[in-house]
Amino acid sequence: MKELTILLDSGSRLPLYRQIYEYIRGDLLSGKISAGEKLPSSRLLARNLQVSRSTVNLAYDQLLSEGYLRTVPGGGYYACEIEPGIFQPGTRRERDSGPAGEKAVGKGFAPTGEKAVGKYFAPAGEHRFQALPEEPFCDFSPDGVEWPESSDNAWRKAVKAMLAEERPELFLPGDSLGDENLRQAICDYLYQARGVDCHREQVIVGAGNEYLLMLLFQVLEGPFPVAMESPTYRQAYETFRNLGCPVRPVASDEEGMNLAGLAESGARLAYIMPSHQFPLGTVMPMKRRMELLQWAGQAEGRYIIEDDYDSEFRYKGRPIPSLQGSDPYGRVIYLGTFSKSIAPAIRVSYMVLPQGLMEAYHRRCGFYSSTVSRIQQQILFQFLAGGYFERHLNKMRALYRARNECLLQELKGKAWVRSIYGERAGLHILVEVETAKTEEQIQTEAGARGVKVYPLGAYGIGGERSGKKLLPCWLGSEKPVLLLGYGGLNEEKIREGIRRLGEIFS
Amino acid sequence: MKELTILLDSGSRLPLYRQIYEYIRGDLLSGKISAGEKLPSSRLLARNLQVSRSTVNLAYDQLLSEGYLRTVPGGGYYACEIEPGIFQPGTRRERDSGPAGEKAVGKGFAPTGEKAVGKYFAPAGEHRFQALPEEPFCDFSPDGVEWPESSDNAWRKAVKAMLAEERPELFLPGDSLGDENLRQAICDYLYQARGVDCHREQVIVGAGNEYLLMLLFQVLEGPFPVAMESPTYRQAYETFRNLGCPVRPVASDEEGMNLAGLAESGARLAYIMPSHQFPLGTVMPMKRRMELLQWAGQAEGRYIIEDDYDSEFRYKGRPIPSLQGSDPYGRVIYLGTFSKSIAPAIRVSYMVLPQGLMEAYHRRCGFYSSTVSRIQQQILFQFLAGGYFERHLNKMRALYRARNECLLQELKGKAWVRSIYGERAGLHILVEVETAKTEEQIQTEAGARGVKVYPLGAYGIGGERSGKKLLPCWLGSEKPVLLLGYGGLNEEKIREGIRRLGEIFS
Repeated sequence: MKELTILLDSGSRLPLYRQIYEYIRGDLLSGKISAGEKLPSSRLLARNLQVSRSTVNLAYDQLLSEGYLRTVPGGGYYACEIEPGIFQPGTRRERDSGPAGEKAVGKGFAPTGEKAVGKYFAPAGEHRFQALPEEPFCDFSPDGVEWPESSDNAWRKAVKAMLAEERPELFLPGDSLGDENLRQAICDYLYQARGVDCHREQVIVGAGNEYLLMLLFQVLEGPFPVAMESPTYRQAYETFRNLGCPVRPVASDEEGMNLAGLAESGARLAYIMPSHQFPLGTVMPMKRRMELLQWAGQAEGRYIIEDDYDSEFRYKGRPIPSLQGSDPYGRVIYLGTFSKSIAPAIRVSYMVLPQGLMEAYHRRCGFYSSTVSRIQQQILFQFLAGGYFERHLNKMRALYRARNECLLQELKGKAWVRSIYGERAGLHILVEVETAKTEEQIQTEAGARGVKVYPLGAYGIGGERSGKKLLPCWLGSEKPVLLLGYGGLNEEKIREGIRRLGEIFS
Repeated sequence: MKELTILLDSGSRLPLYRQIYEYIRGDLLSGKISAGEKLPSSRLLARNLQVSRSTVNLAYDQLLSEGYLRTVPGGGYYACEIEPGIFQPGTRRERDSGPAGEKAVGKGFAPTGEKAVGKYFAPAGEHRFQALPEEPFCDFSPDGVEWPESSDNAWRKAVKAMLAEERPELFLPGDSLGDENLRQAICDYLYQARGVDCHREQVIVGAGNEYLLMLLFQVLEGPFPVAMESPTYRQAYETFRNLGCPVRPVASDEEGMNLAGLAESGARLAYIMPSHQFPLGTVMPMKRRMELLQWAGQAEGRYIIEDDYDSEFRYKGRPIPSLQGSDPYGRVIYLGTFSKSIAPAIRVSYMVLPQGLMEAYHRRCGFYSSTVSRIQQQILFQFLAGGYFERHLNKMRALYRARNECLLQELKGKAWVRSIYGERAGLHILVEVETAKTEEQIQTEAGARGVKVYPLGAYGIGGERSGKKLLPCWLGSEKPVLLLGYGGLNEEKIREGIRRLGEIFS
């Protein structure tokens, strides 16, 4: 455990907890405390410093919320990874940033010039992840996708097709919703592939789901309470919180969001992923879907956000039609993205609003230009209309299925594999591990072997940091659970990655 | 050396430095002082006028900052080249119009917003606008820009340059701030063109100013009260309101936002356009800039948003350096866009945050991927790095200057033209009309003739819809004032458009 040398000045204008905070922060930035080191418990530190424990907790909480420290389920505070700052001491800005500095962050403590290294913190909500020193050999990221050369060539074809024509109008402002031909193509695709029932005038093309949620916030005149499952898609959670929406974590069972919990939550909006819940992989059966739709239909202003992020990829059974397609009340807001079906860097998502919300959209948001450039929209349109997208999807389904099978094959019969969840769809699976180690330890030891894994605990929201309390009963296990994404890994990498991971438990 | 005849009126409501300024400016515009002539030193003039030297310096500094005067290494003030003004010297208008008279701005409702008006409902605040049945023959939109074939070819070159390379990484997620090479290129441009002092790690590339304001809202943990001038850039106003920020309209005078009004407003954020207030075209002199910076430095969490959207286009005098460049407190948030300098459909804007806010950005917003696709970012980078952008800007300056002169020529001596503001910069001018008709009537009758004009009244915010109450004294006129944008109109269209507009008043 790290020894701390902290000299408190009872005469200082700085409150004691603030002095403790400054000492520890300083040691972290200067490297005196290095990433992964364990800090003394608040009880111990309080005793040594002869201050109340709540004083120490105040300092620790602040360091936690600012991403300097992280906790682990077993308890204890650990230093987070911090990369060296890019601002050289002595630059004009840094010297002068004093006045601005000490106040800049609103609620959080003010960053001084040096604190700009905060840039390199893990994104909010990922404090428990340790950035690896360099590219891991094998990154089981659930966000990984493959971009095969054939598709790359197809994309270039689409670009050339777009360039071939004289299109000066592409440099004039376009429709706020997005280009009409692209919206029609998305409509057609959603109807045949997902049974989504909409007109192109209900489709909004935007640069990513998070941006579309920011628009939705404005259409629905937020802030409003949002019900989310736990664990869930953290980025949507953080977006709602940034916008000032109170997020009510609702327990989910093996059929998805718990209705009683939803009713109690007092939420106006329910954010769900009925076709393939992230990260659990739950598929919501018809009965539960109908109950949810009824909940929405029962009161004015209730809506369901159906995030259909990876429904393109199912390797067994029929695709599950969208919730939107069976909504009799016009209360489902459908969200989809090309980030998984094509690539994250495309930055094109789409939102289908109920007809009843279009007037509000145009009144409040109609003046926004689409956040996707028209050139980008037309490249994508060519990719869809040219049949490239369909071919790409078919190719990807086969490729991802093979990787999925390869991964399951590798896990099969391993003593450390306690159980596997969500194994026949999407781009990741869940593995419950038979071990005494914590998710934290596994992540660190795997990282040391060049393998990056993602602990389920980090996707929990609300009350308990790990969110375990809210996990479905069938996943309430205290054993570590890992997300293993395989979209971006070829089969050799998968085999070697699992072999290295296994070493930790042998 | 030029002899100046200046009669100061100690009883005037105009401060002495202001009277000196007006005299010299008047003589410059009327040609009494011709280009290249040397003016008396501030010491000499102060002695002759029996005022303090600092009073004279104030007047000289303002004339300098507005490009009327220049200094030479040896010392001394010289008159700059001024194109023959269409002012009628001696009219009250000219005397009082002050600096604003010389700077105009082209910014208004997004044409997409206008489109939506046709299809659906008017976005909030646009009720006074009437959607035209079909494309007008001549649309004096302040958002109009030209996209010449030469630039179109250059853009295609940039696309091809980007396609030529094997860049599979462009399909992987990029930096949340935007690609590093693009941010560096923007940094370099801002430093040399606008005197913006920043590191590329402070630059955020985003899909449009409105999106960047949505990010800023989250960085500063909104909602917070925002002070805006009236009239102002409506889209920023609507964005703040959509996000739940109370907007406090602050009166502006001929030097820009009124400091007393700002202090009273209790706002935490001041949104201004110091180089070119939209739509009035005011240029904020140094003194007012310093006062604003002090306001920001005086209290925790105060920031100034400097929207520098069209500073590329000035047809006379030196460009006015950015406010950000002279900010000692790190309280200026700088906003810029390529929508005017290239084209709206590019959908690329940038925000320079004070270093003191970067930690908050990364903690709260670091998990957002850039809303601009990496392909788009790299096309733009090629366009900048390849020198295409600079050539494009030079071409545009010449083109817009010609259109500007053509428009002024057409208006010259027309009986219905009472006065003109902001005629030497940006992409639109203001015309005060001598008529008994209302702005709405003019808009309707012009529309019937296929001419679309934009009444100043519609850009007012707060209390009185027209915002007249808040207009600077020198523009308090009850006569209709029209915005005439010319960026997207060739000279024939301008001539015919003005001819048709004139019919209304004959």
